[in-house]
Amino acid sequence: MPGPAPAVARVRSAVRSALADVPPGALVLVACSGGPDSLALAAAAAFVVPRLHRGSDDAAPARVGAVVVDHGWAPGSDEVAAAAAATCRTLGLDPVHVVVVRPGSAGGPEAAARTARYEALADVAARTGAAAVLLGHTLDDQAETVLLGLARGSGARSLAGMAPRRGLLRRPLLGVPRADTLAACDALGLTPWHDPTNAGAPEHPLRSRVRAQVLPVLEEVLGPGVAAALARSADQLREDADALDAAALAVPAYGSADGSADEVAGGVADGLDVAALAPLPDAVRRRVLRRAALDAGCPAGALRREHVLGLDALVVDWHGQGPVDLPGGRAARRSCGRLVIGPAGA
Amino acid sequence: MPGPAPAVARVRSAVRSALADVPPGALVLVACSGGPDSLALAAAAAFVVPRLHRGSDDAAPARVGAVVVDHGWAPGSDEVAAAAAATCRTLGLDPVHVVVVRPGSAGGPEAAARTARYEALADVAARTGAAAVLLGHTLDDQAETVLLGLARGSGARSLAGMAPRRGLLRRPLLGVPRADTLAACDALGLTPWHDPTNAGAPEHPLRSRVRAQVLPVLEEVLGPGVAAALARSADQLREDADALDAAALAVPAYGSADGSADEVAGGVADGLDVAALAPLPDAVRRRVLRRAALDAGCPAGALRREHVLGLDALVVDWHGQGPVDLPGGRAARRSCGRLVIGPAGA
Repeated sequence: MPGPAPAVARVRSAVRSALADVPPGALVLVACSGGPDSLALAAAAAFVVPRLHRGSDDAAPARVGAVVVDHGWAPGSDEVAAAAAATCRTLGLDPVHVVVVRPGSAGGPEAAARTARYEALADVAARTGAAAVLLGHTLDDQAETVLLGLARGSGARSLAGMAPRRGLLRRPLLGVPRADTLAACDALGLTPWHDPTNAGAPEHPLRSRVRAQVLPVLEEVLGPGVAAALARSADQLREDADALDAAALAVPAYGSADGSADEVAGGVADGLDVAALAPLPDAVRRRVLRRAALDAGCPAGALRREHVLGLDALVVDWHGQGPVDLPGGRAARRSCGRLVIGPAGA
Repeated sequence: MPGPAPAVARVRSAVRSALADVPPGALVLVACSGGPDSLALAAAAAFVVPRLHRGSDDAAPARVGAVVVDHGWAPGSDEVAAAAAATCRTLGLDPVHVVVVRPGSAGGPEAAARTARYEALADVAARTGAAAVLLGHTLDDQAETVLLGLARGSGARSLAGMAPRRGLLRRPLLGVPRADTLAACDALGLTPWHDPTNAGAPEHPLRSRVRAQVLPVLEEVLGPGVAAALARSADQLREDADALDAAALAVPAYGSADGSADEVAGGVADGLDVAALAPLPDAVRRRVLRRAALDAGCPAGALRREHVLGLDALVVDWHGQGPVDLPGGRAARRSCGRLVIGPAGA
């Protein structure tokens, strides 16, 4: 008996690795749009999940279902959702939930749709008691995310891409190229839906233009391994950001060592102890200062690197300078060895 | 009297900021190829450096000279160097040294030329007692460096770009776009040399292809601020890498807290203490492991992320697995709570 096609085997293997700790009898949900990535993921999960506990004689097999989110964006989105749900059922996933969402507009249409989608997934997971929700993001999605983060220029966190796990969410395919999900669908006789807004036309989302125009040029100039290199960079930068964010949260000048919110807020009201901040590494001190500014009410989107460097100068380059203006009508001043952030002009 | 052209003023301002701490009477050298960046830098330094200590009545003015490196790469490189030197003298720089280097081939032609160039600069700086050597790298060079690092996928250090200062070297123009150096040369009536290998043809260095083909597409899709965003990311990632590299060096499991080389070497021979490594943040522990592998003789170019993750599994995912093979004929094994890296098969 021949084995599965190589792409099918690779997708299954990635799903198996990502689910090694799922307990017997648990329900795993696949978020499926009907596109090639999530369809290949659904097919692999349908194969892998019921077999996770084979060999443990008295273990109940794990179960696998699906959630299809209909954003109602374009006419016919209900048909796309119904077709995806039907394919999931054919693959043996059960239960299959179709959830209609009506995204708001906060943060732009893409961000609003993402927020609505994740809320719907969390809601179905809670109602069904699912142990994990699988998302179909691939290596190429991760590379695109890194490039979008580069354009923002806001440091390691924005370059760190998507986490393989966060809460119930798992992304088993972050190491699998999109070519594999396409090939897997093909080998399995599945017909994925191709989102027309992924074509990279000027009116399409920025991500689709990065996909259609930027990555091919990067591959041509820098070599075909560039998507994998971007994803590898993201993994390392995520580790770095985790370590440094945790170090910043543990700084006693700011809040308590366990970073509890009450004491952190108290720390801001009383100001930060400059003498405790000054000897910290730049990367940690500036994270503490950025967080203090956010906690004092500066809007995250408007708080730029220059603001943080202005705060930093009050700590490490003090020569009696005046208050530093911050977005959201806030200002920082140094007084009696403490840095206080409050309303501007106060 | 009208002031200087805006681009000239911006280049001068950047040079002034970068040289604020140069002492009276000191010699500052400009590394000048005759290209637009280093020519604009030389012109700005000729204006700024003698004025650094105006107002301090009895301070001797600082002096500014130039070093022109002739790589002998192409026929006529001596004429390019002689023309650059003549322009520097016309601008008032004194002394002007022309140094002929013959790069080896280690690491490829670009790396070998860079090594030879920096050695020549260090040599002239030592002979002349210079306090600083200025390099003309711009914001666009920094953005290109980040993109080249992304293509390698080797973490924050390779994305951190060029440092504004390292030893005697200073790069005053890392925040100045190349458009400004071109405009400054134009406004000052200087005719820069344009390196034909910067055109981005297939046979040209990778950097020039990134410049000619990748950055324009990024700017078109992601917006005109992308070079500045890349440079800003580099600044933050350099801070992060500095902090985490220092944290890794201070880990007692590895060497002494001051990271002295003897004790570090001793640490590798005796193996690393697994119990001390395990609780560290991933970003720190994996840096310690990478460094231990390098110190044990693994070649840096061949030591990949997968190797480091294999070492890491011996620490945090131990289930009695066998040795982990490493490049350079080395292997790591865990024994009696210690991780030992030595010759494979030993």
